[in-house]
Amino acid sequence: MTVNLGVIGTGAIGTDHIRRCHLALSGARVVAVNDINAEQARKAVAGLGIDAEVYANAQDLIDAENVHAILVTSWGPSHEELVLAAIAAGKPVFCEKPLAVTAAGCLRIVEAEQAHGKRLVQVGYMREYDQGYLALKAVIDSGQIGEPLMLHCAHRNPTVPQAYGTSMAITDTLIHELDVLRWLLDDDFVSAQVIFPRTTRHTHSQLRDPQIVLLETVKGVRIDVEVFVNCRYGYDIQCQVVGEEGIASLPEPSSVQLRSGAKLSTEILMDWKDRFIQAYDVELQAFIGSVSSGQIGGPSAWNGYAAAVAADACMQAQESGEIVPIKMPERPAFYA
Amino acid sequence: MTVNLGVIGTGAIGTDHIRRCHLALSGARVVAVNDINAEQARKAVAGLGIDAEVYANAQDLIDAENVHAILVTSWGPSHEELVLAAIAAGKPVFCEKPLAVTAAGCLRIVEAEQAHGKRLVQVGYMREYDQGYLALKAVIDSGQIGEPLMLHCAHRNPTVPQAYGTSMAITDTLIHELDVLRWLLDDDFVSAQVIFPRTTRHTHSQLRDPQIVLLETVKGVRIDVEVFVNCRYGYDIQCQVVGEEGIASLPEPSSVQLRSGAKLSTEILMDWKDRFIQAYDVELQAFIGSVSSGQIGGPSAWNGYAAAVAADACMQAQESGEIVPIKMPERPAFYA
Amino acid sequence: MTVNLGVIGTGAIGTDHIRRCHLALSGARVVAVNDINAEQARKAVAGLGIDAEVYANAQDLIDAENVHAILVTSWGPSHEELVLAAIAAGKPVFCEKPLAVTAAGCLRIVEAEQAHGKRLVQVGYMREYDQGYLALKAVIDSGQIGEPLMLHCAHRNPTVPQAYGTSMAITDTLIHELDVLRWLLDDDFVSAQVIFPRTTRHTHSQLRDPQIVLLETVKGVRIDVEVFVNCRYGYDIQCQVVGEEGIASLPEPSSVQLRSGAKLSTEILMDWKDRFIQAYDVELQAFIGSVSSGQIGGPSAWNGYAAAVAADACMQAQESGEIVPIKMPERPAFYA
Amino acid sequence: MTVNLGVIGTGAIGTDHIRRCHLALSGARVVAVNDINAEQARKAVAGLGIDAEVYANAQDLIDAENVHAILVTSWGPSHEELVLAAIAAGKPVFCEKPLAVTAAGCLRIVEAEQAHGKRLVQVGYMREYDQGYLALKAVIDSGQIGEPLMLHCAHRNPTVPQAYGTSMAITDTLIHELDVLRWLLDDDFVSAQVIFPRTTRHTHSQLRDPQIVLLETVKGVRIDVEVFVNCRYGYDIQCQVVGEEGIASLPEPSSVQLRSGAKLSTEILMDWKDRFIQAYDVELQAFIGSVSSGQIGGPSAWNGYAAAVAADACMQAQESGEIVPIKMPERPAFYA
Repeated sequence: MTVNLGVIGTGAIGTDHIRRCHLALSGARVVAVNDINAEQARKAVAGLGIDAEVYANAQDLIDAENVHAILVTSWGPSHEELVLAAIAAGKPVFCEKPLAVTAAGCLRIVEAEQAHGKRLVQVGYMREYDQGYLALKAVIDSGQIGEPLMLHCAHRNPTVPQAYGTSMAITDTLIHELDVLRWLLDDDFVSAQVIFPRTTRHTHSQLRDPQIVLLETVKGVRIDVEVFVNCRYGYDIQCQVVGEEGIASLPEPSSVQLRSGAKLSTEILMDWKDRFIQAYDVELQAFIGSVSSGQIGGPSAWNGYAAAVAADACMQAQESGEIVPIKMPERPAFYA
Repeated sequence: MTVNLGVIGTGAIGTDHIRRCHLALSGARVVAVNDINAEQARKAVAGLGIDAEVYANAQDLIDAENVHAILVTSWGPSHEELVLAAIAAGKPVFCEKPLAVTAAGCLRIVEAEQAHGKRLVQVGYMREYDQGYLALKAVIDSGQIGEPLMLHCAHRNPTVPQAYGTSMAITDTLIHELDVLRWLLDDDFVSAQVIFPRTTRHTHSQLRDPQIVLLETVKGVRIDVEVFVNCRYGYDIQCQVVGEEGIASLPEPSSVQLRSGAKLSTEILMDWKDRFIQAYDVELQAFIGSVSSGQIGGPSAWNGYAAAVAADACMQAQESGEIVPIKMPERPAFYA
Repeated sequence: MTVNLGVIGTGAIGTDHIRRCHLALSGARVVAVNDINAEQARKAVAGLGIDAEVYANAQDLIDAENVHAILVTSWGPSHEELVLAAIAAGKPVFCEKPLAVTAAGCLRIVEAEQAHGKRLVQVGYMREYDQGYLALKAVIDSGQIGEPLMLHCAHRNPTVPQAYGTSMAITDTLIHELDVLRWLLDDDFVSAQVIFPRTTRHTHSQLRDPQIVLLETVKGVRIDVEVFVNCRYGYDIQCQVVGEEGIASLPEPSSVQLRSGAKLSTEILMDWKDRFIQAYDVELQAFIGSVSSGQIGGPSAWNGYAAAVAADACMQAQESGEIVPIKMPERPAFYA
Repeated sequence: MTVNLGVIGTGAIGTDHIRRCHLALSGARVVAVNDINAEQARKAVAGLGIDAEVYANAQDLIDAENVHAILVTSWGPSHEELVLAAIAAGKPVFCEKPLAVTAAGCLRIVEAEQAHGKRLVQVGYMREYDQGYLALKAVIDSGQIGEPLMLHCAHRNPTVPQAYGTSMAITDTLIHELDVLRWLLDDDFVSAQVIFPRTTRHTHSQLRDPQIVLLETVKGVRIDVEVFVNCRYGYDIQCQVVGEEGIASLPEPSSVQLRSGAKLSTEILMDWKDRFIQAYDVELQAFIGSVSSGQIGGPSAWNGYAAAVAADACMQAQESGEIVPIKMPERPAFYA
């Protein structure tokens, strides 16, 4: 059975997911699109030669008989309402980050999904589908390095635009670690602290850069994440897990090794879009497969909620300079 | 338009390609299968829940109205006849290695395809679709290392079965380099020499292992390829291009870095199937795309022929210990 | 001129320095030795075939006419008195770590040396003579990575004996970073915080292991040092300097690269004595040279004092869990 | 006992050895020097503040009562006569490469030394004292990679002067491999072949560059050495030993790792003098020690002879393009 998808939001990421479904993945087609800019929605499918209906209204798209599942790729503040509507309609929904712009909003989705009685929501945290993170998790789970004790991580961008302020280091950047590290360790955060090193001269007045976020987990694992978004030299994601018996590090992206100009070198990516390009394919193929099988998996609404709660604590820690507790309700059996 | 494929030969690789078309790739479905063992053909599609017709006869499958293109994944000696039949039917055909078991057979295909007037044949040399080789070619073509002067290559397997004899080091193993290096350098071979080092105690009486094959190209590039198929430690493909300004090496497969047991280590693959797993997907997706567009690309019948001619010379060099010339007719404009 | 050395303390390190002077270095000889165990002192020189006078009393050795300079390699608590005596005698003195067992003791030496009017003391912090740290400092000083903003460091041992308690992570282990990082950055510490991650099952009841020490400098550089002394896998010293334009890391010790058993690996040292073996030679040769030239250089008494002050703050931070200020008097021009 | 050295030839390398003896090594001093340019000899010692007698005549220096051992660092063509004179005087002699400019000359030294009845000659092949080669040999000898079957080597220089012709690729460059590989494998060469790849545009008319030299040993090991002396990018020495169970590679020189400008890089040396700088110290310290002990070791006159014989065959192979046998007399028990 081919899965019929309805896509809400046809900006850059929406258009990219449409392309992905039609030119790279198996088992799905886009039959319906919606955007606040109807003309853009029309162009998004026309440009790919796809015969999909353009809906003026997102709710109508969600309700359409021939739409089996929904992709929410619209503006962040609209996500909560759209995901709730998809749940109300009983349709599987893949929602790009963030699940909702507040933890309270995420919690409403979590509650609605539980009330529905079955998982419907997959959140677009693609790192869990990255070959490197999967390989790292496999090593941890194999017991080769013993119990994890510490993680040393870095999330570095060459540069960010003027509009990126200090708190976005949490909500736009660290948010990926806040999700993927819980998954990697099968653990929850209990506190956060933020340290501000000397500021790089390459930042602007609204952004303290770099930052170091210190996290503690229920199991006592201590995590430091360097967030450095004007690092100049590349888009560089590091994750080193120090265990009782050894250390495992996230693979460096594969690259030609060069000997030239008195240097032995490999390339570092400059563009974040290149780093997880395959993970986007795998993530969406997994969603399509789970719609077919009727068993939605991947990053859950609960995970989206947990990341939002942790992000709130980190922003509080940015303000106060204190160690801020991260308080999560107990994880419902529904999300076990 | 969905491309309807007919698959001839439903052994391991055939079944894998059927799975690939239905579960991983976009734009194609398998509508017809054939195998000398009809029961196996039936199982291959039934196991995947695919509704494809099982043909008792390969020619009937090739002629079937609803079959747009053919995958030849049967026993090597049957390839020539099947590819010629597909050409006669005017249908695009993807043929696994070898294109034909003799250079003469390859040449007959080359001539038939030219007589047809348009490319129909893509040969299953998947390395040209490997991210690593593509990245290496991009570096060479960028001019960063200047003109290539030498290549140092290795093709190593942990072990081979008893049935693998000395000449199979050429026809089963080196054959990949004989194809991919011509593509990498955009060059042709002019001579071959084979050197037999001290033999490993891990080989058997029918196999001289390792071997070193020395190749020379039209442009004067000198290539050494170590073929070592009982190397024990891993499946390891190396390709280092020494140019006038620097050296570029094929990327190592990406792997978790471990610090444990007094070693800093990354993993080396043991199974060849894991090495080019993504390249198989990309290769077949490219074939599907080119069937749709009507412009067949990728490794051509001419490339299959050139590799066969070079392999013949290498086997002669194994016997004689001499430097054996490799004589190719001029490349027809058709294959430019 | 050959420098005549008097060595006080002929345990493992004293004996090793005697051997070094006679078999590996240029320009010095040991003419006098002293140890609380006179028999051991006699054996230390006899074993090397050296004709040196064995003194029953350290002060007599210091005062001996033919002794040009002193090596203090005795038990830590005796260092302060011996160094003060050497200063009183106006003789250059090389003192192994610690300069004194308290910051107050170090300060008395600093004051005595200033009263003498000329540098006489070199402290045995050998890392400043390590090729790797020297290369790292050269990169920083070249400006290639811009201003340093953060340092990520690790000091890992495979195992420690039962007698090694929680505070020794500071006084025996971190002490090396407390010295070398000031030198590397040409900066001073202003605060310390200690974090205790989940404890490894390989530690014993008197030792919380691992620990993470967070340091802040006058220039605002933030440093994290993982101290993990039962890490099992190796003796591993890491130092990564994150600057405004790029990142520089301490070189890994040079090692044969192996491909075997499905691993691509290099060796990690297990024994700390192998890690800085060349640095000990270079450090002592530098002392000999500076005695000859009359200009004592290298790690000064002030540096020994600064490391002691920082260590005190770190131990206080271990106890309190708080961020502890590190208060140093202004550096005298004498030590500029 | 301090070893009194007489140095014949006070050019760059001679002066460097004098400096080494006085400022870096233990147990020796230079008491006598000679050079065809007496003024230069005078300056060489005066510049270092050494009180050594300047001899107008090399034979007088060799015969001087107070000279215990000789360093021959003069022009290559003078080596044979000087080494023979030292043997005649019964004095240990360290001779820089080449031992003699012809194989016949080397053989005369071998015969004279045997007639003397005891080893007196150490040849200045410093690679045997390089930490990297020593570590590589230790791995081979440990049996970890099984019996060596193949070696892939490279000897690359950034550039060479106009005076460097095609045959100097053998006599000046490959000569190091001709010595060190025999030592590494404890084996002898039996044949040589030279291949000329496409020539780099960075060479000049008197030099075919690069070259590939193929060697075969008594045990059947096959060696390829790429000699590329205008490679532009660095001074780069590679040696990979492929054994029955795994592969061991010569360590890369230790270097700071940089992340900057979209590259992850380490430095490659540009100047050959930096590559083996420590090996020169170790080599000469070993000679001093062996003079003291009366047991001369290290690279012997026989090794110098063997390298010369192999070099002659390689030059013949350059001319003929043929596989040229390398014929060595049986190694005398004297040199076992």
